[in-house]
Amino acid sequence: MSKISYVNGAYFNHKDASVNIEDRGYQFADGVYEVFAVLNKRIVDFDAHLNRLYRSLNEISLKSPIVKEAYLFHIKNLIRKNNVKDGLIYLQISRGVAQRDFKFPTNTKPSLVITAKSISIENYHTNFDTGIKIKTTEDLRWKRVDIKTLNLLPPVLAKQKAIENDCEEAWMIDAEGYVTEGSSSNAWILIKDELITTPATTSILNGITRTSLIKALKKKNIKLKERRFNKKDIQNADEAFITSATQFVMPVVKVDKTKIGNGKVGKYAYMFKDAYMEAIQLK
Amino acid sequence: MSKISYVNGAYFNHKDASVNIEDRGYQFADGVYEVFAVLNKRIVDFDAHLNRLYRSLNEISLKSPIVKEAYLFHIKNLIRKNNVKDGLIYLQISRGVAQRDFKFPTNTKPSLVITAKSISIENYHTNFDTGIKIKTTEDLRWKRVDIKTLNLLPPVLAKQKAIENDCEEAWMIDAEGYVTEGSSSNAWILIKDELITTPATTSILNGITRTSLIKALKKKNIKLKERRFNKKDIQNADEAFITSATQFVMPVVKVDKTKIGNGKVGKYAYMFKDAYMEAIQLK
Repeated sequence: MSKISYVNGAYFNHKDASVNIEDRGYQFADGVYEVFAVLNKRIVDFDAHLNRLYRSLNEISLKSPIVKEAYLFHIKNLIRKNNVKDGLIYLQISRGVAQRDFKFPTNTKPSLVITAKSISIENYHTNFDTGIKIKTTEDLRWKRVDIKTLNLLPPVLAKQKAIENDCEEAWMIDAEGYVTEGSSSNAWILIKDELITTPATTSILNGITRTSLIKALKKKNIKLKERRFNKKDIQNADEAFITSATQFVMPVVKVDKTKIGNGKVGKYAYMFKDAYMEAIQLK
Repeated sequence: MSKISYVNGAYFNHKDASVNIEDRGYQFADGVYEVFAVLNKRIVDFDAHLNRLYRSLNEISLKSPIVKEAYLFHIKNLIRKNNVKDGLIYLQISRGVAQRDFKFPTNTKPSLVITAKSISIENYHTNFDTGIKIKTTEDLRWKRVDIKTLNLLPPVLAKQKAIENDCEEAWMIDAEGYVTEGSSSNAWILIKDELITTPATTSILNGITRTSLIKALKKKNIKLKERRFNKKDIQNADEAFITSATQFVMPVVKVDKTKIGNGKVGKYAYMFKDAYMEAIQLK
């Protein structure tokens, strides 16, 4: 079965799904996006992702090309057309096609693209048992990374640096030595029984998975401290993990040359994963 | 006559020129670009632009999809096919089409897109006589703006803010209160007989027009100081202007509420324009 994608009101075979070369998403990264996880044919945290999409649109003065109610319709169509049980929905909106000029075009309809792909949830659980390794990199990004925009070259370069150093993810370090977040995930450490994650300022993208996990842990009376942490804190950490819509909760067993705990996935990571999976009612 | 554009080895009617929705330029702004001016069918500063393109490619570990010698061939073809006398060539290279993943794809050919458009050089000279107004904005960009990448949303937002404030360009101000550059131009002021422009560090994109003008002015024994300047310096400025491949030398007559000199285009601006036009041998 060919993969089917949605582009500006119609469905296409994925390989034929295209946009004009003067789409402002292509020339200026003038747009925003969301990634939704699908588990057992259900969209995880749909409302929270959609609300964040509208916040992103608003922050860059971009109007949704379709009514808010229509997103669920198109996403469900794509899940069905691509026969996705477990997978990911990628959705991006750009400021549309216009003759290249930095200023906003007038009377141009924004472009909407949605794609779907299947993932193996079994692979996730297997990867979880191994955990991932982190490479720290300098946070080179702009000052409004709280908006989920297409300006992703800085995290792309960070992620690539991690890969080239035999790691799976980067943790970006700000000018004061603190971890902001991963290239496409939020960062957490556990010191003794205190769980720590970077606060949601304009220095991080406030993850939907991050927010869901915080809610879930509150119900379990897990002590959470939203504060910045640095490399010294990491050296004192007993456990560490990342959260994202594509990785859910994923344990970290090493950061640069520092083994976390005994270098194996810790018991809290399993507890947090269970709490998260339970909270999204998919366990 | 339809406009013709180049995409990955072939020429298309511009409205049909497209790229796949999973081109990394579209999803990650994972690419670089150049803009070449064409005056009287000649490409201005071709070698300097091409060398900067190769520097940009190198900085983000991207390989040119064609041999260096082929760029001139394709650009000349587009100039001819579009019958451009005076105009602009836009050229962008992205890391190609691959299933969405932050890390670099393997065995993926980079995408190359080239477009051409005509401009009126008479309009430029008319606009020069009026000059432009500048709005200062916060410089929100990432830390490697010396690379000419597609991550252009921050300057797009700056430019739009200028437009909405009845100005033609933005000057971005860094955390220490200094002007870095315009949204797509370099910034210059003249205090008495001292010409000042922001030095080419990683905080600005080192303009080819900037470099050419510096060379031209050296020959004329104009005193140039490459140093940072702030709003107080602007208040003391007798003249001001911007440089870019699309605007050449363009005088600034107002910055926020500050009139520059007497609010009219000054005599040095004309001298610098003449020096630049003479230097590129097109006067």
